[in-house]
Amino acid sequence: MELGAPPLSLPPPLGLWLQLTHEVECQNYSLKKQSAEKQLLQAREGAEKIRRKRSSLFGTFHVAHSSSMDDVDHKILCAKQALAEVTAALREKLLRWQSIEALSGFSLVSNPGLAALAAALNLEASFLGLRPPPRTSSCQTTWTTWTMTSCPRGPSSTQRGRWTAE
Amino acid sequence: MELGAPPLSLPPPLGLWLQLTHEVECQNYSLKKQSAEKQLLQAREGAEKIRRKRSSLFGTFHVAHSSSMDDVDHKILCAKQALAEVTAALREKLLRWQSIEALSGFSLVSNPGLAALAAALNLEASFLGLRPPPRTSSCQTTWTTWTMTSCPRGPSSTQRGRWTAE
Repeated sequence: MELGAPPLSLPPPLGLWLQLTHEVECQNYSLKKQSAEKQLLQAREGAEKIRRKRSSLFGTFHVAHSSSMDDVDHKILCAKQALAEVTAALREKLLRWQSIEALSGFSLVSNPGLAALAAALNLEASFLGLRPPPRTSSCQTTWTTWTMTSCPRGPSSTQRGRWTAE
Repeated sequence: MELGAPPLSLPPPLGLWLQLTHEVECQNYSLKKQSAEKQLLQAREGAEKIRRKRSSLFGTFHVAHSSSMDDVDHKILCAKQALAEVTAALREKLLRWQSIEALSGFSLVSNPGLAALAAALNLEASFLGLRPPPRTSSCQTTWTTWTMTSCPRGPSSTQRGRWTAE
């Protein structure tokens, strides 16, 4: 990293947009982590289903004549690989934003949060995918909601939400 | 947006880190889009499976006594919602980075790409999740590879890869 240059004082609007960028990336990271955790859970449930099948005569016959066991082993391997990649992504993200903060002289990781940033930038909350938790839909959406798990903060920053990674 | 301030000339190292941040976000977007497209494909495959079942006597009995049809309808609805959210995320991303570019006076959306940025910042390519396509593994990973679809570029920027969104 080239961190030798003196810190730069960013104009407030640019700082707000970079804070918003950090928050959006944090939410993408959280979604990726949740997806990897779900992938591992489903793989383990598949393994348990195989074990139950093997406990019956039909199950033994069925499993012995299918690739179910190999499939489950492969899914568990892939899920663990996905979680390892999520952990690596977290390390990369933390280093990158620490570097950007050091060079910009602007607090970015610790910020007022998406809703406040949207208001400060005159953006509609819905434009950022912010909305109250759905009451009637049970869809697993790919974008953010008010109930999205907050991003992990650096050691000197404020923990605004649940953080369970690593 | 507050874009009235005069453009700022960023120090090159900060510009490189912001270009890297843009590229990482583009890859997260691409993964999210691919996930939503896969979700819709699987939902439609489920609907086709139901149609085939209904063509048989057993299938008619089975479908008439299960929630399969409702499940498939719900999955298709959720998949379409996920794709709509991906499209909204693209709009938000484009506006945000255009604003950051305007305020910073630095070309960010059009950049030399992850590999060159990693080299310029003295980062190991593997630290960014960059690696050759796997030869023996068929895992669906959650992080990036050399073969990752490139991000859509703005009108004035360079299209470095396939772009099929919207």
